[in-house]
Amino acid sequence: MPHAETAKSAEKALSQALQRDGQGRHLWRVLGQYANYSVFDVAGNDELHEILQGLPLYPYLAIQVTPLAQHPSSLAASEN
Amino acid sequence: MPHAETAKSAEKALSQALQRDGQGRHLWRVLGQYANYSVFDVAGNDELHEILQGLPLYPYLAIQVTPLAQHPSSLAASEN
Amino acid sequence: MPHAETAKSAEKALSQALQRDGQGRHLWRVLGQYANYSVFDVAGNDELHEILQGLPLYPYLAIQVTPLAQHPSSLAASEN
Amino acid sequence: MPHAETAKSAEKALSQALQRDGQGRHLWRVLGQYANYSVFDVAGNDELHEILQGLPLYPYLAIQVTPLAQHPSSLAASEN
Amino acid sequence: MPHAETAKSAEKALSQALQRDGQGRHLWRVLGQYANYSVFDVAGNDELHEILQGLPLYPYLAIQVTPLAQHPSSLAASEN
Amino acid sequence: MPHAETAKSAEKALSQALQRDGQGRHLWRVLGQYANYSVFDVAGNDELHEILQGLPLYPYLAIQVTPLAQHPSSLAASEN
Amino acid sequence: MPHAETAKSAEKALSQALQRDGQGRHLWRVLGQYANYSVFDVAGNDELHEILQGLPLYPYLAIQVTPLAQHPSSLAASEN
Amino acid sequence: MPHAETAKSAEKALSQALQRDGQGRHLWRVLGQYANYSVFDVAGNDELHEILQGLPLYPYLAIQVTPLAQHPSSLAASEN
Amino acid sequence: MPHAETAKSAEKALSQALQRDGQGRHLWRVLGQYANYSVFDVAGNDELHEILQGLPLYPYLAIQVTPLAQHPSSLAASEN
Amino acid sequence: MPHAETAKSAEKALSQALQRDGQGRHLWRVLGQYANYSVFDVAGNDELHEILQGLPLYPYLAIQVTPLAQHPSSLAASEN
Repeated sequence: MPHAETAKSAEKALSQALQRDGQGRHLWRVLGQYANYSVFDVAGNDELHEILQGLPLYPYLAIQVTPLAQHPSSLAASEN
Repeated sequence: MPHAETAKSAEKALSQALQRDGQGRHLWRVLGQYANYSVFDVAGNDELHEILQGLPLYPYLAIQVTPLAQHPSSLAASEN
Repeated sequence: MPHAETAKSAEKALSQALQRDGQGRHLWRVLGQYANYSVFDVAGNDELHEILQGLPLYPYLAIQVTPLAQHPSSLAASEN
Repeated sequence: MPHAETAKSAEKALSQALQRDGQGRHLWRVLGQYANYSVFDVAGNDELHEILQGLPLYPYLAIQVTPLAQHPSSLAASEN
Repeated sequence: MPHAETAKSAEKALSQALQRDGQGRHLWRVLGQYANYSVFDVAGNDELHEILQGLPLYPYLAIQVTPLAQHPSSLAASEN
Repeated sequence: MPHAETAKSAEKALSQALQRDGQGRHLWRVLGQYANYSVFDVAGNDELHEILQGLPLYPYLAIQVTPLAQHPSSLAASEN
Repeated sequence: MPHAETAKSAEKALSQALQRDGQGRHLWRVLGQYANYSVFDVAGNDELHEILQGLPLYPYLAIQVTPLAQHPSSLAASEN
Repeated sequence: MPHAETAKSAEKALSQALQRDGQGRHLWRVLGQYANYSVFDVAGNDELHEILQGLPLYPYLAIQVTPLAQHPSSLAASEN
Repeated sequence: MPHAETAKSAEKALSQALQRDGQGRHLWRVLGQYANYSVFDVAGNDELHEILQGLPLYPYLAIQVTPLAQHPSSLAASEN
Repeated sequence: MPHAETAKSAEKALSQALQRDGQGRHLWRVLGQYANYSVFDVAGNDELHEILQGLPLYPYLAIQVTPLAQHPSSLAASEN
């Protein structure tokens, strides 16, 4: 299997593992682009940096991290 | 209650109603800003436009809609 | 026929098929550029993403999707 | 009726007249924004400039005109 | 003559032909850059698109077309 | 006459004087905008700065000056 | 004391308290601007969002949060 | 060792030397990117330019230098 | 004298004092704009920040400081 | 000597000749970048364009020319 395909399936396997253990909370494709929105729930910045650096496709990715906080109107906030 | 506070609490009430009925799927605050990421699951563009136009704070909001598609690596895609 | 020409004529054939079946509603060239404005009418985001991904030139395209809604002043809106 | 509402309904009336006489070919709302995509078919730049300047909301609009040409893959081009 | 020089002299010949027949009205170099401002006077967008596409250097050019209209303060407007 | 109208007609008078004496070589309106492209032929930067500062509408203008040089393919260059 | 001065001295007092308890690790002024670079060390995003929202000048600030991770070449990393 | 690895370890060694002698005051990784924030404390611009030019990875770096000044609310300022 | 004129003449006086004592090395107007390029030669960032903050027009200025270093091809560098 | 080194030393020689004859008035390095600010004093745009085009490194340079005018507060202006 060409290098690109190997890397892509390794990326998919790791992504699904992260989703199963709850660190990878959401993953969407940007319509019409080879680009994603991913939402992570991790213990801190260093942990997320390690996850991202460990992605097989990391060397080919342009990543922009936008830190999120709980929104006061979210139902989750009301339940806390 | 001043106009701004009335509009904000009406916004919160509508937002939570949208979350309860499943159209408003996710809502996060951008850290350090009076800005949000909201993820909607709706029947089509006209429905979403109507929802957004109906927000009490709509006249004061700068909204950028990025259409999303299902990601082939998402667990949801694997289950489909 | 060189690869580029094959891909371009396959792109043209697919584009015209999309236009005939009503998904591809409009297609214009941006004056002076190898760039287009295309307007699609589809059932939802996943369907459009699949169409775009299926374009022979997709790997070479920089696509920006702007979701549109019906305009209250459009004659179509008045007829609804 | 307040000034804004008068201007808006005059804008709607003019817009629909332009659509009926074929100069205003398409009009869509950008989802989530008080912004439009309009497609005009006119005799030349001066005619379009006059139409736009004559819009009641012109003083409040930020207009960006992108000139379009016929696309070689459009069905209309094949029919010519 | 290397390909680049052939294309450049063909570009110059075509550009001067366009200037002589009045379609190419003005041509200036942007100071310090391999970039131009060109002003064309043509019958319509399709005609200009064809001219630009026919330029020998077209595949290597980044073209931005800004449509112009007659200015009410221009002497030409006063003479009309 | 309101201040704005006075300033605009003074601007038009000065603009036409500049065109008659050859300093103001070209003046076009950007289609759909209250914006211009003006081409000046002056002795040097200080002279152009003085002309622009002297425009009645100067305090309300956002001016971007792009210095131009003669283009080697322009007919004028061939005649020199 | 005018409102602005009261808010500024309250901002200074809070800022220095944050520095003393170690959450506010660094604070520099951008040369020539009324703008800062601040580095915080906090337990998580929600805690930082609360700190920033609590700043007296928060309503007047344009904040851009860039999440940082430990650098492998930093002496601190070598000591860990 | 491949050239890139040699350059990276030379970069790390120099970076740590700069940190030990106090010129390199802080060094953080931008989360998710192969990019840094570095804070230097040097005698002047020429000294910093020499340090940066001397970095083994300098030819491959896109550096943006933002000059900083002491902030009036920083504890260091209060101690001065 | 209106406040703006007082501030402007105070700005001019201070600017000329800075030029006479050698801190303000160069001062040019950007052609067509109420904007400047100023070159300062100072002992360090804090000194420059103090100078800029002390300008009567400082509250109304959008300042962008680009730190410069000696150029290896400058005659001054050859003389050092 | 490799091509790049030959071009760079030819560039330095020409730059210093321009400085000696007064056309090249100032030359600074942007701190941390392989980029310059150069100030020229020339008879007109065509002369400057010729100088820039004649630079050995011209094909590799991204040049942005900002035209300057005498500043009313500059000591030079007061002496005129």
